[in-house]
Amino acid sequence: MKLATLRDGTRDGQLIVVRRDNAVYAPATGIARSLQAALDDWDAVEPKLRELAARIDAGTVETRPVDVTKLHAPLPRAYEWVDGSAYLNHVRLVRKARNAEPPPTLETDPLVYQGGSGDLLGPTDDIPLRDPAWGCDFESEICVILGDVPMGATARDAARYVRLLLLANDVSLRNLIPTELAKGFGFFQSKPATAFSPFALTPDELGPVWRDGRVHLRLRTTLNGTVVGDVDAGPEMHFSFFQLIEHIARTRRFTAGTILGSGTVSNQDRSRGISCLAERRMIEIIESGAPKTPFLQHGDRVEIEMFGPDGRSLFGKIDQKVVPA
Amino acid sequence: MKLATLRDGTRDGQLIVVRRDNAVYAPATGIARSLQAALDDWDAVEPKLRELAARIDAGTVETRPVDVTKLHAPLPRAYEWVDGSAYLNHVRLVRKARNAEPPPTLETDPLVYQGGSGDLLGPTDDIPLRDPAWGCDFESEICVILGDVPMGATARDAARYVRLLLLANDVSLRNLIPTELAKGFGFFQSKPATAFSPFALTPDELGPVWRDGRVHLRLRTTLNGTVVGDVDAGPEMHFSFFQLIEHIARTRRFTAGTILGSGTVSNQDRSRGISCLAERRMIEIIESGAPKTPFLQHGDRVEIEMFGPDGRSLFGKIDQKVVPA
Repeated sequence: MKLATLRDGTRDGQLIVVRRDNAVYAPATGIARSLQAALDDWDAVEPKLRELAARIDAGTVETRPVDVTKLHAPLPRAYEWVDGSAYLNHVRLVRKARNAEPPPTLETDPLVYQGGSGDLLGPTDDIPLRDPAWGCDFESEICVILGDVPMGATARDAARYVRLLLLANDVSLRNLIPTELAKGFGFFQSKPATAFSPFALTPDELGPVWRDGRVHLRLRTTLNGTVVGDVDAGPEMHFSFFQLIEHIARTRRFTAGTILGSGTVSNQDRSRGISCLAERRMIEIIESGAPKTPFLQHGDRVEIEMFGPDGRSLFGKIDQKVVPA
Repeated sequence: MKLATLRDGTRDGQLIVVRRDNAVYAPATGIARSLQAALDDWDAVEPKLRELAARIDAGTVETRPVDVTKLHAPLPRAYEWVDGSAYLNHVRLVRKARNAEPPPTLETDPLVYQGGSGDLLGPTDDIPLRDPAWGCDFESEICVILGDVPMGATARDAARYVRLLLLANDVSLRNLIPTELAKGFGFFQSKPATAFSPFALTPDELGPVWRDGRVHLRLRTTLNGTVVGDVDAGPEMHFSFFQLIEHIARTRRFTAGTILGSGTVSNQDRSRGISCLAERRMIEIIESGAPKTPFLQHGDRVEIEMFGPDGRSLFGKIDQKVVPA
């Protein structure tokens, strides 16, 4: 089942069910007014949404064409946005880029940060950048939306908490990171609003490519029309989503609608390309002594998309332009 | 105007208006179903809430007695919880306690961290602690709840974004902090659910003690029945709430309902006592070479309260017990 959120003038938008081919939708009128409302009461709401999805497939309900420019993020505001950094190749490269050591517990203790969740960008929303000197970068990621997670949840039982999957562009301001992290309290100004893909999918929609808490597909990132990354999201996700859930739930519980990210998808095989510019700049430093690729400038366009085994776009496309703010 | 949230079986609870003496309330039925709903549409809702408050004062509406054990946090779940650390005496003492240097920009660049906001504790909710070895501590703070804040908001204009004030217990797990901060991504497991005071007040309710983005009153903390701190929240708040708002809004905007905290209220004058145990332990180390005060154990009780110039409890009392989880 594919869900999305239509802009309707309200803060949370209107929940819609989208056909598998992304072409048409039907509003979830009378079932749940928003995706958050559906997640709040998932056990009761999910069967009704699935029934609507079946009617869309059968052509027995009125549908309208999908226009992704009319879509919010599936959750335009969320109660938490927690982002991991589960691809260790990314951690190693990016820390090298800022002359920082990876933590000694890199392979045993997941890195996660608490992101801002009150203002999330839709898939075609511009990235407002007040100062290009801040070093704006994209980060292409996979995310899960969780149901209620109790404190002490374990990786073994974590599959049950995964309600939906989607993609994110975890926009970062690279040149603000070193001084901010030096203060010791983590990211804040260096992480502006994150953008999300048009569609959020129930795990069954992915079939066997969703296994062991990882998505075994490639994530494609395009910069100004050129594919810069076609990176395998599966094997190199060192900590699975299930392990990340166990990690975050060690000392507290999470409410339905929490979004949990994988961190920048990254492969050791450099021919796969990159999911953020910081990695490319580090590779340039290693190979030629200096970075050649600039960070994002006003007018730059970033697209992020993932295709299923049948070649179909699973989550729709994040397609954003950097603009002055 | 004093607002609070009654437990009613829903996730967001029922918004109520509380009389100035904290004794009785009337539900905001027909005005706004929850505090978040009121904040979402504040300009339209606030006058109606004030009208109800006036009717409560005049005795022309039916009221019921307030039972704080029936109250949620004013926002049982919030879209963001951003906590500053604006009392520099606290920063200096706590960093000393973990052999860390305060950042060189301590006096010019505010410290803030992004906290978990999806699961907030009510004023009399237990603090669930899975392992006392984690070093559980309270942190007594003042907070503001914001309206919509645009990117680039300045301190000069920030008063207009402050909708409500309240108190918080920013529970911390001290012994998890050093390894977590060493990883470079800030707090996560070391910051379990934060608790909030029963009542949230509009700024006018504080009168002249709310000025320059600071609350010029003392914050009293009681541990197991003994007052451990009666700390002046005013002059030593190095960065005002207005300056904190400018800081957080530099690179993104904030949605209505964002909670912004002051950080642990702390005075250089040691006779004022403490608003967290870490400070007392550091003072013990300075004075006698070793900490004597243990962190919170199962069964310990923490109370946090602030009294107006007339001696009345402004926000009601946070009154929590640490329990096994």
